[in-house]
Amino acid sequence: MSTVKLTDNPEADPRVKVVFDEIRALRGTDYINNLWLYLAFDPALLEEIWQGVRDVMTTETLIDFKTKEMIYVAVSIANSCQYCIHSHTAAARSRGMSDDEHAELLRIVSMAGRTNHLLNGLNIPVDDIYDMENSENHP
Amino acid sequence: MSTVKLTDNPEADPRVKVVFDEIRALRGTDYINNLWLYLAFDPALLEEIWQGVRDVMTTETLIDFKTKEMIYVAVSIANSCQYCIHSHTAAARSRGMSDDEHAELLRIVSMAGRTNHLLNGLNIPVDDIYDMENSENHP
Amino acid sequence: MSTVKLTDNPEADPRVKVVFDEIRALRGTDYINNLWLYLAFDPALLEEIWQGVRDVMTTETLIDFKTKEMIYVAVSIANSCQYCIHSHTAAARSRGMSDDEHAELLRIVSMAGRTNHLLNGLNIPVDDIYDMENSENHP
Amino acid sequence: MSTVKLTDNPEADPRVKVVFDEIRALRGTDYINNLWLYLAFDPALLEEIWQGVRDVMTTETLIDFKTKEMIYVAVSIANSCQYCIHSHTAAARSRGMSDDEHAELLRIVSMAGRTNHLLNGLNIPVDDIYDMENSENHP
Amino acid sequence: MSTVKLTDNPEADPRVKVVFDEIRALRGTDYINNLWLYLAFDPALLEEIWQGVRDVMTTETLIDFKTKEMIYVAVSIANSCQYCIHSHTAAARSRGMSDDEHAELLRIVSMAGRTNHLLNGLNIPVDDIYDMENSENHP
Amino acid sequence: MSTVKLTDNPEADPRVKVVFDEIRALRGTDYINNLWLYLAFDPALLEEIWQGVRDVMTTETLIDFKTKEMIYVAVSIANSCQYCIHSHTAAARSRGMSDDEHAELLRIVSMAGRTNHLLNGLNIPVDDIYDMENSENHP
Repeated sequence: MSTVKLTDNPEADPRVKVVFDEIRALRGTDYINNLWLYLAFDPALLEEIWQGVRDVMTTETLIDFKTKEMIYVAVSIANSCQYCIHSHTAAARSRGMSDDEHAELLRIVSMAGRTNHLLNGLNIPVDDIYDMENSENHP
Repeated sequence: MSTVKLTDNPEADPRVKVVFDEIRALRGTDYINNLWLYLAFDPALLEEIWQGVRDVMTTETLIDFKTKEMIYVAVSIANSCQYCIHSHTAAARSRGMSDDEHAELLRIVSMAGRTNHLLNGLNIPVDDIYDMENSENHP
Repeated sequence: MSTVKLTDNPEADPRVKVVFDEIRALRGTDYINNLWLYLAFDPALLEEIWQGVRDVMTTETLIDFKTKEMIYVAVSIANSCQYCIHSHTAAARSRGMSDDEHAELLRIVSMAGRTNHLLNGLNIPVDDIYDMENSENHP
Repeated sequence: MSTVKLTDNPEADPRVKVVFDEIRALRGTDYINNLWLYLAFDPALLEEIWQGVRDVMTTETLIDFKTKEMIYVAVSIANSCQYCIHSHTAAARSRGMSDDEHAELLRIVSMAGRTNHLLNGLNIPVDDIYDMENSENHP
Repeated sequence: MSTVKLTDNPEADPRVKVVFDEIRALRGTDYINNLWLYLAFDPALLEEIWQGVRDVMTTETLIDFKTKEMIYVAVSIANSCQYCIHSHTAAARSRGMSDDEHAELLRIVSMAGRTNHLLNGLNIPVDDIYDMENSENHP
Repeated sequence: MSTVKLTDNPEADPRVKVVFDEIRALRGTDYINNLWLYLAFDPALLEEIWQGVRDVMTTETLIDFKTKEMIYVAVSIANSCQYCIHSHTAAARSRGMSDDEHAELLRIVSMAGRTNHLLNGLNIPVDDIYDMENSENHP
């Protein structure tokens, strides 16, 4: 159940068609997942979000593709975004994440959830050595 | 300003001393950061948290140390845990994260924050192909 | 699947009936949505929540009704509350929010999700000029 | 650094004075903590919030005072609200929470943070036996 | 729809069998809920999470069982973890939480959600008397 | 205390200078707030974030400037992002938000925080009439 209507024949809009064609070409499949189908209700928003995701997640950058997807999954878990968890877990797998790496990702994320809650409850002062503006601390 | 008192002479407690000695040995430094100093108010909780963090973050596992710390930072940002963001950003740097990789980590995390909010607002149905229980989808 | 039981014949309780009658009168419809039907399991909680929502959201105040509902949607998205996102998106529409305004709301909310994550990751000191207690800064 | 100005002589406003007098009487001290001093910028909002908190937290109800404050701390930790964590940790102590109970509260909250993240990452279907609407399951 | 596959015949793995046997013995029922069935995809993670939960939640400690489960529910609500909310609400009921206590728990949690958001919006300075490190304040 | 170093003489980089000049021209002031000063550590990220914020928040669109800033504040409160709350509260004021409107914004946001927590705790099924894909429901 969505808060927006699925558009009939979304590719009748040329801006939508450009985005969908790019998605198909990049992924080598005709399948367009629901995120993009629903976002077609507003072609400008579709373009904006697609270009943002494409430039960070599907372009060669410093961090390898698999790691980028695993970081994305980690944030999505902390934000309780089910669609994002599912689509980026699938993307991480397609980029090579094994079952064991998935288990380890979940181990790290849940460990972080534990210490994040503990530290928020303690409100311990941050050590001065973690201050990047004090360059002496990080020679 | 913390919600617990800093313990005077924490290493008088032998359980605390064991943990602090392990931290010093593993890191090759005498510096003990505030998290462990404050946690010494309850030696059992100190042991529990230290052993959990040690086993996941300072032991050779499938995912390399730098990546593990970057995933930890990502979760901590989404949870607004300032102590955790600072200490794990410093840990990621000590494990080799460059300024450029830090910038890219922040780019991915903030991109995920954007699409997480968008997707939660749209509540789009998760595609069946993301269902791991349907093994046909993931040959 | 709820954590409380739906009450049979909730309006047998006079406190529930008063609330439901007010909801119907205010909205000009007989339809009572699930939130109120389920909350009837505890008439005191039902009254409390209804009166709070009614006083803020269905009473003429400084901020117009459509804007109030859009602000409510924004918070609900950030909190991952699916029922709230759905019911307040519908309320915003019934108060006049167009498809284009909905798209713009989602654009702002997701932009805020992005910079919120970036700023939490950077932990930049808040500028003194934003301190309301220093009245010189806000002449 | 606050987003609102601290009011000079807030008790010049009779609505503020009534609230502050009630706080002093209930607590048996002249000290008014910052939350109420700052909220005095809007007497209607001050009244609303005070009456809500008073009715739940300072009135004899089913759950004892100490437990109520500990539950309040737990939610505040998960929401990263530093003021709330500090004031309700202090309130829990004044209601009898010992250092050991505080440590145990933090242990439970951080354990929940861990499994919450794990479960959000797994998205496991909720078992039918947890459905309260199916009364057979809960005889 | 989960992000991991349900394991066929999970108890073929002896580490899984040990955990499942312990769960059955402790609860006095043969029913194993989905969390543990799905976690069996990684026996080490299953053991780790089970032992953590068991030691805190099913062992006699300072805080009684019912209260511990109610605190767990509170955190899970703030983190939007539906599986956790359902399973720990059921556990709290099995530990004696009545319908009225459930309603009061929800009242406290939602009150905390309200003041958490208000305080985060105001960013009021935390009073010095809440600083545990200043022992004079807490004689 | 930030996780990145403040750049010395950031406008020596021509990409930074272009962004800073645009900020000054748009706002009619020489003051550059900390967000942009710190982001100068990575000119590409600075450009990306500035252009995103500029296009949504400082360009004439369907929703008026004051309302857009109030929506931004609402999301930032729910995400516990202190820098964002401060800078966008100041922006909303500069766009005309009065003290009374600020109080009302906080009233709505905290009300939403309350019902978001309540609804997440109840997990009530979303009514079919809120499904935008069923066009009959929204004639």
